[in-house]
Amino acid sequence: MKAAIVTVGDEILIGQITDTNSGYIAKALDKIGIGVFEMLSVSDDRLHILNTLAFLQNRVDVVIITGGLGPTKDDITKTSLCEYFDDHLVVNDEVLAHVIEIIEKALQRPASQLNKDQALVPSKAKVLHNAVGTAPGMWMKRADTVFISLPGVPYEMKYIIDNQVVPKLVAEFERPYIIHKTIITYGQGESLVAERIEDWENNLPDFIKLAYLPSPGKVRLRLSARGTDEALLRAGIEAETEKLKNIIADIIVGYDEGETMEVMLGRLLAKKGKTIAAAESCTGGKIAQMITSVPGSSAYFKGSAVTYATSAKINILKVNPQLIDVYSVVSAKVAESMAKNAKELFGTDYAVATTGNAGPYKGDSAVEVGTVYIGFATPNGVYSAKFEFGQPREKVIDRASGKALEIIYQEILKN
Amino acid sequence: MKAAIVTVGDEILIGQITDTNSGYIAKALDKIGIGVFEMLSVSDDRLHILNTLAFLQNRVDVVIITGGLGPTKDDITKTSLCEYFDDHLVVNDEVLAHVIEIIEKALQRPASQLNKDQALVPSKAKVLHNAVGTAPGMWMKRADTVFISLPGVPYEMKYIIDNQVVPKLVAEFERPYIIHKTIITYGQGESLVAERIEDWENNLPDFIKLAYLPSPGKVRLRLSARGTDEALLRAGIEAETEKLKNIIADIIVGYDEGETMEVMLGRLLAKKGKTIAAAESCTGGKIAQMITSVPGSSAYFKGSAVTYATSAKINILKVNPQLIDVYSVVSAKVAESMAKNAKELFGTDYAVATTGNAGPYKGDSAVEVGTVYIGFATPNGVYSAKFEFGQPREKVIDRASGKALEIIYQEILKN
Repeated sequence: MKAAIVTVGDEILIGQITDTNSGYIAKALDKIGIGVFEMLSVSDDRLHILNTLAFLQNRVDVVIITGGLGPTKDDITKTSLCEYFDDHLVVNDEVLAHVIEIIEKALQRPASQLNKDQALVPSKAKVLHNAVGTAPGMWMKRADTVFISLPGVPYEMKYIIDNQVVPKLVAEFERPYIIHKTIITYGQGESLVAERIEDWENNLPDFIKLAYLPSPGKVRLRLSARGTDEALLRAGIEAETEKLKNIIADIIVGYDEGETMEVMLGRLLAKKGKTIAAAESCTGGKIAQMITSVPGSSAYFKGSAVTYATSAKINILKVNPQLIDVYSVVSAKVAESMAKNAKELFGTDYAVATTGNAGPYKGDSAVEVGTVYIGFATPNGVYSAKFEFGQPREKVIDRASGKALEIIYQEILKN
Repeated sequence: MKAAIVTVGDEILIGQITDTNSGYIAKALDKIGIGVFEMLSVSDDRLHILNTLAFLQNRVDVVIITGGLGPTKDDITKTSLCEYFDDHLVVNDEVLAHVIEIIEKALQRPASQLNKDQALVPSKAKVLHNAVGTAPGMWMKRADTVFISLPGVPYEMKYIIDNQVVPKLVAEFERPYIIHKTIITYGQGESLVAERIEDWENNLPDFIKLAYLPSPGKVRLRLSARGTDEALLRAGIEAETEKLKNIIADIIVGYDEGETMEVMLGRLLAKKGKTIAAAESCTGGKIAQMITSVPGSSAYFKGSAVTYATSAKINILKVNPQLIDVYSVVSAKVAESMAKNAKELFGTDYAVATTGNAGPYKGDSAVEVGTVYIGFATPNGVYSAKFEFGQPREKVIDRASGKALEIIYQEILKN
């Protein structure tokens, strides 16, 4: 059973907005055993939409379309559906009542004709109730393919996917199982990991597929099994994971279903009842932003002194100006002082600190662009490490932040 | 002249990662007058890739493919290209030397065979130099269509797009002009705006297209003109914008060319020679991270006190504990005190501060999830504003950070 996800809207094709809807829908479908064959973003163009629907008709069982359902002239998904299904629009009374209620309640004025037109749906469509907006979802079928049209506003799309589309797909289709397991490795590059596990990879059973997901500092190995016998799939995945453990035990740091380092770090700190703070120069708040992206992080994160200017390092973090004069602002000594002082200032068990040059220009220091010192303050002492993260700026910031969390995670694990 | 963007990778089709590459590429192409006909995400599957290339061959002039260039077995873009072009892989000596240099410098070990295999390229391909990674970009041509293959790692893709692909496309193709203008309106819904401008919209010239981009609280109206006479397009856009101003002057709050607020703010501060700092509670470093994502931000950004814990607000930001006791930590008074003290502590002209509850749980304060106070310290005084950003957490953090930058931007503009 296969699906396609189609996003309609010129704003995506000119790069004005990023399509996050398709990823949400793909995840929801994957969970119920429906694989996504393809994702497409097409323009607000009648013919392009019609050609896309026809192209997908014979290739997949389910087509989910988002966008183009608004009340304005550039929204043409509904009329295109009518044309594809040789249908016409009719007023749906339940939707109309819902539109009038929403508009009058939210805007304190009567619904206009444009608002009311949201209740026009193709006569052959089953309506999928949208409790959080005015544009209804629609479910239509031609030959063996189901076409589902949803509004492009993310929270409206999510509501209809969770409450209408997924339950209806589960009820109407027999689906295989898809099971994923991701093994997280740290510290070795994709090539090296691939060499170490080559024999194991070559002997994987046919129903298990391996993917490498490299990112700065880590490689995630994703095993995916697909089939009708859930127990068999699970046993297969577990057996292969065990074999893998024996080969690369030294670099495996965890398992996840898409978990990030900040989530893992947060769980570890919460479990141990320990706290952390940061002092950031070149990472500019990224470490704090990563840590606080996790719900509940206030239980273990006290804060970060983002001391971008040298003067702020002296005034706020109380770094000794002589240290900066003698060793330079980008140095092991300053990174260590920043970490030590952040730990004291915030009163935490651990602290990480960064000082470096993210580029693209040379800053207050003579070091090369990409050079970063990361300092660590722990209950056992203070130390630092030097890294060369190269270019560009974005990579230096991402890798320095990731590395800081990774090393302190390993440190906390040991204690 | 039309392009298609193809992303290769199962991780996108199961929703494990969101494709942000396509949007970056679309924006870069749009700037040089190349419209994107379609974006596609396809699986790591030989036949699927081949069918997609064949499908696009007759539809567009340029196909840009990202992903699937890594050194491991699941990376099959290169072999698929060979098959499509009836070609074979050969070692490119320049790429090989570059790979060896990168690996030995970064990893302090000799390059392995898998590393060296990155230098294998189809014999018919022109190599696009990748200074920031080991996988080269490739440029191939069949009949009248150019196929460009790029690594999926975002900063590597960006480097090659900016430094190789865009200059080469500009040099080799005659392109029309595409000019956009986006008018930002606040305070009225999409339907109402559409009704007010209906007559104007119906009388737009054929070469100008209008799109509505609604988001919570605002509707952006994007005008796009396409043609060969740049002066004519610009004049047309300006004339229509003037007419629009006369109709909805009361709700127009600004214009943009798709630039982010942090870039606009940075340029304004640099131009005026002013500096800024932040004090962040619920935004957790996001404001600092946004500001420092802009190269050269050290010229105007001094730092941010990310005081997540109440104790940190007192110890580091010197917020009076009595203020917190009397008004609560999430209050206008505390937001104002944080902003005022950050301005003094960092010695800047401006400061913004946030205190609120991003959720999902209630924190140290009794306020509802989604409530955020934003404080502003300026040369003219200190003030604050209260917002209800709803849920979820991610939205609260994003909207509070965006709002803080937006308001301080307006404030600096006035001075």
